[in-house]
Amino acid sequence: MNLENSFVNSRKGLIGIAIAVSVVVFLLTMLLVSIFRHKTEAKNPYLRLVEVKQATTDSAYWGNNWPIHFEQYKKTANASRTNFGGGDADPAQKSQMFPFLTRMFSGYAFSLDFKDRRGHAYMLSDQEKTRRVTERPQSGACLHCHASIIPTLVRMGGGEVAADQYFENIIWSGFEKIVKLPYHEAHKELEKTGSLNPQVGAAVGEFLVQEGAHPVSCTDCHNAKTMRLQVNRPGFVAGIRALKASEGVANFDVNRDASRAEMRTYVCAQCHVEYYCGPKVTLFFPWGNGVKVEEIESYYEQYKFTDGHRFFDWQHGETSAELLKAQHPEFELWRQGIHAQSGVACADCHMPYTKEGAIKVSDHYVRSPLLMANQSCQQCHAWNEKELQDRVAAIQKRNFDLLLRAGNALTEFLDSYKQLKKSFSADKVESSQDQVNLNKIAELHRKAQWRLDFVAAENSMGFHAPQEAARILAESIDYFRQAQLMSVEMLNMGHRGSSD
Amino acid sequence: MNLENSFVNSRKGLIGIAIAVSVVVFLLTMLLVSIFRHKTEAKNPYLRLVEVKQATTDSAYWGNNWPIHFEQYKKTANASRTNFGGGDADPAQKSQMFPFLTRMFSGYAFSLDFKDRRGHAYMLSDQEKTRRVTERPQSGACLHCHASIIPTLVRMGGGEVAADQYFENIIWSGFEKIVKLPYHEAHKELEKTGSLNPQVGAAVGEFLVQEGAHPVSCTDCHNAKTMRLQVNRPGFVAGIRALKASEGVANFDVNRDASRAEMRTYVCAQCHVEYYCGPKVTLFFPWGNGVKVEEIESYYEQYKFTDGHRFFDWQHGETSAELLKAQHPEFELWRQGIHAQSGVACADCHMPYTKEGAIKVSDHYVRSPLLMANQSCQQCHAWNEKELQDRVAAIQKRNFDLLLRAGNALTEFLDSYKQLKKSFSADKVESSQDQVNLNKIAELHRKAQWRLDFVAAENSMGFHAPQEAARILAESIDYFRQAQLMSVEMLNMGHRGSSD
Repeated sequence: MNLENSFVNSRKGLIGIAIAVSVVVFLLTMLLVSIFRHKTEAKNPYLRLVEVKQATTDSAYWGNNWPIHFEQYKKTANASRTNFGGGDADPAQKSQMFPFLTRMFSGYAFSLDFKDRRGHAYMLSDQEKTRRVTERPQSGACLHCHASIIPTLVRMGGGEVAADQYFENIIWSGFEKIVKLPYHEAHKELEKTGSLNPQVGAAVGEFLVQEGAHPVSCTDCHNAKTMRLQVNRPGFVAGIRALKASEGVANFDVNRDASRAEMRTYVCAQCHVEYYCGPKVTLFFPWGNGVKVEEIESYYEQYKFTDGHRFFDWQHGETSAELLKAQHPEFELWRQGIHAQSGVACADCHMPYTKEGAIKVSDHYVRSPLLMANQSCQQCHAWNEKELQDRVAAIQKRNFDLLLRAGNALTEFLDSYKQLKKSFSADKVESSQDQVNLNKIAELHRKAQWRLDFVAAENSMGFHAPQEAARILAESIDYFRQAQLMSVEMLNMGHRGSSD
Repeated sequence: MNLENSFVNSRKGLIGIAIAVSVVVFLLTMLLVSIFRHKTEAKNPYLRLVEVKQATTDSAYWGNNWPIHFEQYKKTANASRTNFGGGDADPAQKSQMFPFLTRMFSGYAFSLDFKDRRGHAYMLSDQEKTRRVTERPQSGACLHCHASIIPTLVRMGGGEVAADQYFENIIWSGFEKIVKLPYHEAHKELEKTGSLNPQVGAAVGEFLVQEGAHPVSCTDCHNAKTMRLQVNRPGFVAGIRALKASEGVANFDVNRDASRAEMRTYVCAQCHVEYYCGPKVTLFFPWGNGVKVEEIESYYEQYKFTDGHRFFDWQHGETSAELLKAQHPEFELWRQGIHAQSGVACADCHMPYTKEGAIKVSDHYVRSPLLMANQSCQQCHAWNEKELQDRVAAIQKRNFDLLLRAGNALTEFLDSYKQLKKSFSADKVESSQDQVNLNKIAELHRKAQWRLDFVAAENSMGFHAPQEAARILAESIDYFRQAQLMSVEMLNMGHRGSSD
């Protein structure tokens, strides 16, 4: 019995050991497989299921190969409101927050309709719907930034849309054609180019044009073969060359000469900048003297239209001043701030690295860093999210208050000016000295409003360069008040005399 | 011979080995001694050669025990100019850099003499020499900050000057007496208290009063027994209590409740602040509503002199406006900036840690961090000195330009006002409505100049809080222009009518 027992026991023991060893080996194998899988994932961050081309402007096809990025991109349709606006499902008119805007844009389409911004997904549809476009004639140049337009420019420039590489001179030649078209005709050209899509089920390499217009898409920042960052928007390519030249770097070719860190800003700066996109001349970036507010201003002062007249965007409805409209000079203001100075790119904060499984990707759900302070700010700033958000809020609140103060100075200037104009219609005298003085007032209006608009139109509420934005608004207030003073003095002097 | 040789050789070899071993042992011993000495030095950072007391206001005696700190302190006599002034051997009038200052201080002693600052070593002698003191009556309150005054306050308050600990109520009672004295009489009290000095050669513990007045000295920040940081200046002790109360912390006792990090700011904030030190009431820090520019302003608005009149420093020579004089609100502006927000104390940048042998000391050669960016800025900011200095210079230049712009607005306002006053003397009519309007102008002058002076008198050229300083100057410009507008409108209306 003892012998039998010990035999049975030893058999039981052996079975136990065998099971234990099996489990351990199984677990170890699982671990190895998992490690291997993650390493493989990290090594092969994507699988090319379909081929895409520069002309594939429909991001959904790129999404077959890069599903993570595409899913993120689609989230830009989400509401993403922060302290001072942005991203509501049905965004309000900006004049609700800044009532002075309506009068500020008197005589200009922005007084008609100027809604708060939304995410990338809406850039084209929002433009198609704005009353600035539906009720006023606009140039095709607007599509330079609001659509995935490069293949259309190539086609119109006589180039090969299906090519793997586009050439600057061909893009430029197409660009000069499209800016001469009215918005809706240019839009039709866009639809006609459509997207050159890979054919699922067909042989690899077969593509078919599918008509339609798309907002910014993968091809606007990425090379379809190598995925490297690239920029093709002609306004930026020429603008950055002029800016670099003003800094002593000749013949700057952005796709050849820019570092990867620079490209993480430049892809954004294709559009998030100041430019002229009206009908009178081909769209241009006014960077020949630099990108500070007064450097851009001096560039505009020197710039002459073909009729020899000095550059301006529109004449103000109340003062007839030839004004400048600021677009959204995020790049320009950022460049005056500490983040630019420290080499922090747009994408570092607005598209911070994130992990999906073992894959590290730049988050293509482009949005305010305030909504992801842990991913963005905390990479450098060792403070908790609440503290970081509070810091930004304090900076933005100061800027907001200054904006209202400058808007108030604008309104009071316009009130005084209105009184002055009334006195003119009463006595019907406008001497040549009056005209000289009125011109001086108009010049002050131009300087003041350019500065106010520069900060108001910029989308960081001063955060990109807090002191610089405050400085600009201080100057704006000063010039509005000087314009008001001249108006009051003219009224005082019976429209004549020592008002200078 | 071979044998002999080998014997000789082996003797030579042994001697060689003996010498080598001796040298190695000697060097190792030296190393050990050096390590031991450094460790001992680090453990015993000072040796009390003499005893000092709170009443030892002559730093030279403390220098016997803490020679490194004293040597550093003495260097504050060195010239230490940076971008925008400070520390020249024979400092210029500030109006050379800011010509508007003379008119800004019209009717006030600062229009007489307002030189650029120098180091701590000069704080008392510079005050004794300024024409503001030699040619105008000044209160003893000025010495609250420019002399090592606490033992004098204790003596005048009936306390024990030689005591190891001073009591707040006794200091306060002495303080109330000295502020009622004219400057020169208060100075005599200071000299009479002198310094309670240890007697070299006599038994330990014997002290002798040596008459004379001293600038800020060791005792103003350090406890003589424990060397811990402490503050006794009554204005600050009461001021910080009021500030903390406004933030919800009741009965704040700075020496009991403040953290060491806070104390590294508070010792400086005893003087580098805004306060009233005129003759009408006991010196006070206007912090009951907070330390932002408009919080201090609102405190002054509520504050009534004993005659019931609202607080003001002086009436302006041209406009008769009841104005506020800003002192040097470094603490207040710093508190609105990112360094304060990040817990960086005054001493962290202006007295950064430095090594003398094995001893780590806070550098008592208090000066601009620009002069030692490697010691101060680079502790946190990983950029080279040139880059750091350039960043500061860019911030300061923006602030400087805004100061000039605000000064220009001040000057143009005063010009318009002068024209208005001239018209009064011509027709000699001042209706009650005129008086109402003139009062409104005076109020705008008060608001505008308070803001301009707040930034101009502050000694960081905007660096302590760049956006906040720009915001303040923007408001200043706005108010000066509004005052100018009202002046022009009054002239316009024949001194009457709708100028509000």
